[in-house]
Amino acid sequence: MHRESLVVETKNREELIDITAEVREFIRSQNVETGVLIVFVPHTTAGITVNEGADPSVKKDLLYVLRKLIPHRDLNYKHLEGNSDAHIKASLMGSSLNLLIEHGDLRLGTWQAVFFAEFDGPRQRRVYLSLF
Amino acid sequence: MHRESLVVETKNREELIDITAEVREFIRSQNVETGVLIVFVPHTTAGITVNEGADPSVKKDLLYVLRKLIPHRDLNYKHLEGNSDAHIKASLMGSSLNLLIEHGDLRLGTWQAVFFAEFDGPRQRRVYLSLF
Amino acid sequence: MHRESLVVETKNREELIDITAEVREFIRSQNVETGVLIVFVPHTTAGITVNEGADPSVKKDLLYVLRKLIPHRDLNYKHLEGNSDAHIKASLMGSSLNLLIEHGDLRLGTWQAVFFAEFDGPRQRRVYLSLF
Repeated sequence: MHRESLVVETKNREELIDITAEVREFIRSQNVETGVLIVFVPHTTAGITVNEGADPSVKKDLLYVLRKLIPHRDLNYKHLEGNSDAHIKASLMGSSLNLLIEHGDLRLGTWQAVFFAEFDGPRQRRVYLSLF
Repeated sequence: MHRESLVVETKNREELIDITAEVREFIRSQNVETGVLIVFVPHTTAGITVNEGADPSVKKDLLYVLRKLIPHRDLNYKHLEGNSDAHIKASLMGSSLNLLIEHGDLRLGTWQAVFFAEFDGPRQRRVYLSLF
Repeated sequence: MHRESLVVETKNREELIDITAEVREFIRSQNVETGVLIVFVPHTTAGITVNEGADPSVKKDLLYVLRKLIPHRDLNYKHLEGNSDAHIKASLMGSSLNLLIEHGDLRLGTWQAVFFAEFDGPRQRRVYLSLF
């Protein structure tokens, strides 16, 4: 059984949450030497991305630029729920990722971390992990 | 034989077309309990994305924002075919997706749908599906 | 052993480098009829994308638009290394790709090429290939 569903509790409307430790823990618990982990976000106002985990200002700058390019309010938006910006940001980040497994562990670059990208929180969210 | 090639007929220059029903039908016909479906778009002016399928205004807002950020015409574009914007939008959406299969069916979130993203139509397009 | 690590030497700060030939060579050397190739970039200021390989002006236009939308310098950036723009562009392009294998070869569309997307070069970079 190589599947898991993580719960992510977000605290702000927009937030990048580092889930690398949870992803790594799942992989190590599976005793799989080599493979690929598919990460899938089952939401339409949140996404998933890999970026730098060391300096928290990288997350801030990413959210800042997305907010500048895709404002929360725009009189031309047709969607009445007031979260069109979040849907668009979600598609820009993407809903799925491939992560490689080697020697039973996550094979990331030195500075890489896996981020859940919340764009319409705070909410309780889920992330599906499937190992192949 | 777990592969399929869908044909998508687009009717406008820019259009998000919900292909969830076709994708689901393919998966159900394969009698596979668990797995991953790779969706791949073999075009350079179209992409693939997951977003909300219930309210059609989400699609409109996504296309509106992309058009505002990446105008069709820009005197600085070097590519002479007049569709540089479509190439760029395609890379922003991405050319491939991972979708999860569980209990022989597509495992999407409640509001999620799979969209073929046309940026330089109308054309006859293809989407490759490969089940693993 | 279906894994490989390509070395990519970038020569400019921003550059799209066509790695299709190297990817194809790896696939052909593996004697695998059908499958999926996961391409993963272990960097946080570079990404990976599929786009047109025939006309080099498509690459230029893509970099031009990203640079216009996400300027190198912005007084609001918090990250002190001066490469916030590169981190953001990397997340927009994405760090992983799925490519399909058929008849022992890469199954791309007619105009498609696989590009390593450098946003903070020149550097020596790596691209991981894993065949399943």
